[in-house]
Amino acid sequence: MDHLLAAALAEARRGLAEGGIPIGAVLAVDGEIIGRGRNRRVQRGSAILPAEIDCLQNAGRLSASTYRRAVLYTTLSPCDLCGGAALLYKIPRIVIGENRTFCGPEDYLRQRGVQLDVRDNAQCRELLEAFIAARSHIWHEDIGICGTHTTELTLLRADELVYWAVGSM
Amino acid sequence: MDHLLAAALAEARRGLAEGGIPIGAVLAVDGEIIGRGRNRRVQRGSAILPAEIDCLQNAGRLSASTYRRAVLYTTLSPCDLCGGAALLYKIPRIVIGENRTFCGPEDYLRQRGVQLDVRDNAQCRELLEAFIAARSHIWHEDIGICGTHTTELTLLRADELVYWAVGSM
Repeated sequence: MDHLLAAALAEARRGLAEGGIPIGAVLAVDGEIIGRGRNRRVQRGSAILPAEIDCLQNAGRLSASTYRRAVLYTTLSPCDLCGGAALLYKIPRIVIGENRTFCGPEDYLRQRGVQLDVRDNAQCRELLEAFIAARSHIWHEDIGICGTHTTELTLLRADELVYWAVGSM
Repeated sequence: MDHLLAAALAEARRGLAEGGIPIGAVLAVDGEIIGRGRNRRVQRGSAILPAEIDCLQNAGRLSASTYRRAVLYTTLSPCDLCGGAALLYKIPRIVIGENRTFCGPEDYLRQRGVQLDVRDNAQCRELLEAFIAARSHIWHEDIGICGTHTTELTLLRADELVYWAVGSM
């Protein structure tokens, strides 16, 4: 595995060890890591700290020219919030560990000029799948959907976030 | 002015008094404020705390069903990051103080089903315009654009964020 994606995966594992959702991210410029983060919803009691956002927070206040040279590595396809952050700062490229467990607005990001490199990595996927199987209510909260036991989530298209729900959605 | 937009404006003024960028937001459910926030880039040294994100952070971890009953009030048109947060949590309505100083991806938010109510409020606009005139470099950092003195920013369309730049963009 690419060592920068591996660094994002290490963040995801660190998050899991803390009791959090195992999704990790790093921000790199010229192959050097300038920020690391992991989903901290559980750890910080925060609704605004997906892995990529935590990573951007930890990277600090950067110049616009730095963001434009950066690559964001994340173990999971970015959600609307994280994709939005990449658009705001015009981060030109995102390397995505996997997008089978969850797929954010990838088509829209591409339309806005972001290069996406989906690695379909089994380690990234299996780590999150195991968490979701064990703690689906936290996962559902993380992606903003209602219901824990009565809702079935089906990813209809890999390139678009579509929910088909039974029950209380 | 609507008292909830007035509460967002009060947050913006509070931010200015702290030396920050004067943009404020509140989250309301059934007319009751459940979260307040203001842009804290300067105050917290943070790249991920626009007003709406700070507001969602302060509102805490809410259920998906709560977000779906909420209205987000903000003094300024939401940027990609903040709009993305509203999409993630399926907040159905955003009341926008003004969108002349800056206009985020409003068309896209509407396409995704978010109801936008733009108030074109002079107080919201004048507060931010005065800040930008005095401290343009912080403003440019906030919206992720390069250059402070050599770049001219022109809002070509009110419903789409388009930059036309001269210089180092």
